[in-house]
Amino acid sequence: MHKEDQAVDAATTIDRTFEKAGRTTTLGELETPCLILDAERMDRNIARLRGRLDPFGVSLRPHLKTAKSVEVARRVMTSPAGPATVSTLKEAAQFAAAGVRDIIYAVGIAPSKLARVLELRAEGVDIAVVLDTVEQAEAVAAASRAAGVRIPALIEVDCDGHRSGVLPTDAARLVEIGHALARDAELRGVITHAGGSYAARGAEALRQCAEAERRGVVDAAAILRNAGLPCPVVSVGSTPTAHYATDLTGVTEVRAGVFIFFDLVMAGVGVCRIEDIAISVLATVIGHQHDKGWILIDAGWMAMSQDRGTSKQAVNQGYGLVCDIAGNAYADLIVADANQEHGIIMVRPGSGAVLPDLAIGDRVRILPNHACATGAQHRRYHVVHGTSDVVEAEWLRFGGW
Amino acid sequence: MHKEDQAVDAATTIDRTFEKAGRTTTLGELETPCLILDAERMDRNIARLRGRLDPFGVSLRPHLKTAKSVEVARRVMTSPAGPATVSTLKEAAQFAAAGVRDIIYAVGIAPSKLARVLELRAEGVDIAVVLDTVEQAEAVAAASRAAGVRIPALIEVDCDGHRSGVLPTDAARLVEIGHALARDAELRGVITHAGGSYAARGAEALRQCAEAERRGVVDAAAILRNAGLPCPVVSVGSTPTAHYATDLTGVTEVRAGVFIFFDLVMAGVGVCRIEDIAISVLATVIGHQHDKGWILIDAGWMAMSQDRGTSKQAVNQGYGLVCDIAGNAYADLIVADANQEHGIIMVRPGSGAVLPDLAIGDRVRILPNHACATGAQHRRYHVVHGTSDVVEAEWLRFGGW
Repeated sequence: MHKEDQAVDAATTIDRTFEKAGRTTTLGELETPCLILDAERMDRNIARLRGRLDPFGVSLRPHLKTAKSVEVARRVMTSPAGPATVSTLKEAAQFAAAGVRDIIYAVGIAPSKLARVLELRAEGVDIAVVLDTVEQAEAVAAASRAAGVRIPALIEVDCDGHRSGVLPTDAARLVEIGHALARDAELRGVITHAGGSYAARGAEALRQCAEAERRGVVDAAAILRNAGLPCPVVSVGSTPTAHYATDLTGVTEVRAGVFIFFDLVMAGVGVCRIEDIAISVLATVIGHQHDKGWILIDAGWMAMSQDRGTSKQAVNQGYGLVCDIAGNAYADLIVADANQEHGIIMVRPGSGAVLPDLAIGDRVRILPNHACATGAQHRRYHVVHGTSDVVEAEWLRFGGW
Repeated sequence: MHKEDQAVDAATTIDRTFEKAGRTTTLGELETPCLILDAERMDRNIARLRGRLDPFGVSLRPHLKTAKSVEVARRVMTSPAGPATVSTLKEAAQFAAAGVRDIIYAVGIAPSKLARVLELRAEGVDIAVVLDTVEQAEAVAAASRAAGVRIPALIEVDCDGHRSGVLPTDAARLVEIGHALARDAELRGVITHAGGSYAARGAEALRQCAEAERRGVVDAAAILRNAGLPCPVVSVGSTPTAHYATDLTGVTEVRAGVFIFFDLVMAGVGVCRIEDIAISVLATVIGHQHDKGWILIDAGWMAMSQDRGTSKQAVNQGYGLVCDIAGNAYADLIVADANQEHGIIMVRPGSGAVLPDLAIGDRVRILPNHACATGAQHRRYHVVHGTSDVVEAEWLRFGGW
């Protein structure tokens, strides 16, 4: 483990309460740009999805790639030991160090990564891998044989053609992969992700995405079981489908990550309201170009990310939607352009909105297009509750692989 | 200073030579995705710009926002003490800790940041700030008075309308800001950045950008001097204009950052060749969708950034151009789409190129659209020389503010 990672480990679980001369830190005192987390909104978002899934009798395996924070993970996981989903082995190692014991690494496994998977398993972490080829299954089987253990693997199913996975109609390949795993490794089940749901619009389209997602894995599971293979886990997940599924028959667990914070893309899809978005970037006004109707801030793409996910939606939010320091959005005020450390605020073209009177040194909060991408640009969350300006804690987040 | 920052400080200057069982590490053994720096190309790029600027008699003040690494900074700066340009006070503090003493913080100053500027100055660092409003000048003057020092500031000039700065024709505002600074702070000079040059195409257009950049600050300097104000520093800079300026009369220094590494956007502008790009992301093949002509890799937008700077150029490179492990580009093979930890490699639509036969576990290197953005996604450079696969050193880089 690298030196700086160890330092992060040591500090990750510490809630640092700010005390300066006997008083707490406020949003007006933080160095900008920085990442703000409204824990009130986050808690509400978590309760909403839990409340939605409970009647289905499925377990929630939150995807921690959005949060990358032990403190957030503990608030969203069913127990301190998990279950959890991760997108990198760095996430797996960090959360394992914090006590998580039930992890799916949900990106197709590269054979060279199996050594790290085995290390985690040797430490008592039940980490399962994901794959969609016979070559990967054979590599997992060979690594299992060599180590004298059975690495669990889930077969990825392609439910909507957006990325990776075996088609649920490709019975021959599913069964071949299943047999390759079952001999020397462990066939844990099937997994899919309805990534295509991000491009869907409207409740009915989202319900159809959810049903296609369910159908894909349930069909694949039936093929495996009919071939005499085990398939205990049937895993689906995306934030839109988790919120719109009306039937989860045959599904054992749901994965989702963005739902914890939500973002402008999810609001554009219709899965949340603007008022539900729990993270924002605090920025300071550093200039104006009055003739052009521009307000310049010290949050550019380094602080916001270059995610332009709303540019293909009905409402293009630029690099983010501008709020006052209490987190209330201004009407049609967006970060229309960004350089590395400069953001250019404008009213949305054609909206007729009025540019607010923001002076040099004033502070704003910018809601992100994509919580995963904006979060990744920061090393810590500054935690507030609702419209209070008191920074109650600082939670570290990590990056890298 | 935060705990993990201190850890990075301690490790930043250490070249870690990899030794495993008596031999060095190779590209085939690194964990992927990770950032590769070809020091041979970097050294050549640095020598090229130095050789170009030497005849003009101007000094080079490299912009370290691209590299964010002490090791790279030492190779590009004229001396270990600078001069240097930074885009954040975190960069200023990190480079100051490594001995840099002559710094311009080239983003419009927020009054709340002046306390950190004063701290650095108290440590013996000659850090100057940049501003373009009377309000900021008055804040700098007030902070100077309160601290009993004179904070140096440069007036930002708007040479091409792309972002911030005072128009070089706005003599009244230039002089008002100059007087506000000269009384209690220090008017160090004028500064501009031809950001519009990134959108220019062809040598003649780039020469015109360079001349507009020069003209803007030289005119502004003349206005200040004619008003009896000092203006010792006349600073220009962008990688394209630094490489295409044919006249730098009246300019005292040139700033540039991307030239150290170059990238696909700069190749598209015509400032470098593909073969000059010194950084790349090492990735591993994790899957195929044969029917679609897709190869999946473990480098998505988290490893590449979401910069799509070439999408508006003649050749759209998607999320990056694919090379073999030795760094030689495949013809028309690009990362056409990306999710957080997945990249989808395809041949460029319409190119007629043939998809190479890459198997699960094979490794490729991806050239970035934008060196600043891709670099920011990583914590370290793995340093190689030319086509050698030996990793000679690991240089840490930092992020944040």
